[in-house]
Amino acid sequence: MPAIDFWYEFASTYSYPTAMRIERLAAEQGVTLRWRPFLLGPIFKAFGWNDSPFNIFEAKGRYMWRDLARVCEGDGLALKLPPVRFPQNGLKAARLALAGEKDGWTPAFTRAVFAANYAEQKDISEDATLAAILGGLGVEAEAALAAAASPEVKEALKAQTAEAQARGLFGAPSFTVGDTRACELFWGNDRLEAALAWAKRV
Amino acid sequence: MPAIDFWYEFASTYSYPTAMRIERLAAEQGVTLRWRPFLLGPIFKAFGWNDSPFNIFEAKGRYMWRDLARVCEGDGLALKLPPVRFPQNGLKAARLALAGEKDGWTPAFTRAVFAANYAEQKDISEDATLAAILGGLGVEAEAALAAAASPEVKEALKAQTAEAQARGLFGAPSFTVGDTRACELFWGNDRLEAALAWAKRV
Repeated sequence: MPAIDFWYEFASTYSYPTAMRIERLAAEQGVTLRWRPFLLGPIFKAFGWNDSPFNIFEAKGRYMWRDLARVCEGDGLALKLPPVRFPQNGLKAARLALAGEKDGWTPAFTRAVFAANYAEQKDISEDATLAAILGGLGVEAEAALAAAASPEVKEALKAQTAEAQARGLFGAPSFTVGDTRACELFWGNDRLEAALAWAKRV
Repeated sequence: MPAIDFWYEFASTYSYPTAMRIERLAAEQGVTLRWRPFLLGPIFKAFGWNDSPFNIFEAKGRYMWRDLARVCEGDGLALKLPPVRFPQNGLKAARLALAGEKDGWTPAFTRAVFAANYAEQKDISEDATLAAILGGLGVEAEAALAAAASPEVKEALKAQTAEAQARGLFGAPSFTVGDTRACELFWGNDRLEAALAWAKRV
């Protein structure tokens, strides 16, 4: 069965519209989806960036916010700008997304965190925000937060980020089709359709 | 009548597929098209870049060449990699494109220069390459090259680049709808359809 990996970072703006539409599109195309949260920070550091490129390069940032508004409008998606902070620290949310894999709440949790960040002006680095999201999904928040802080999950996120880097990722959202060593890489919300088409043709 | 400005730089890779399809798409949508060559160099310098970001950031460059190949394949467009040099110096070609406006050969000249760069592995900074292109279009090459070297055309390209910067451009291809002070900006070959739709709705 055709499959793609969806690589996202909770601080990434364009990962928001992707997270909200990818499950529907993948299902329509009969493509299996793997949700893969990772961190862009270590990858940007290798570029010499200690902040989002949208903050470092002002003209790019100004454009991105306007373009994101158009994209969200086109998708009928709520967007409330500016967010609480940009970029927000998505470390804890990424660990939770990994911790949720075995019980299957990663996709719903991911969508709720993106909505909290970009549609609800909430601070996604705060336990209170994350616990409320988990509660809304019927997940026992205290246990999930404890699992997310375990050495296993911390290591798993490091490994996932290292794998992203090994696959040549340099931004989010990204999509890969195939194995680490010979995967086909697609970057950007606007490449989702192409990635799904590629998965079906492989 | 709805109208868009098409901003391009001869060194820009994604400007190539755009140059090859924009006239057809604009005509289909009933949108008037203005071809606006400019230089990215001064804009990149303001970012602290003395080279193409695709050379500075290796992972981005590796991805871009692969993605460009997919895009060109999808459009049925020839692509021969690597080009003679990347980025090539498009200064003289940009001046010629401006000089061609009054006689109407700018679009055909632009397409031929992009094909020379990305499909024919030619050096577009050389007079011989440019003269052959002009000859193929039935343009008197010597006179055109002289016009392109005139102070008027040199100043016109500087003014065009300054206007691009004033409009918030930071890459190519870009599309703008509306006046300098309040224009709607779109960046990237993959935003062409959105720019045309915007022009029709204004």
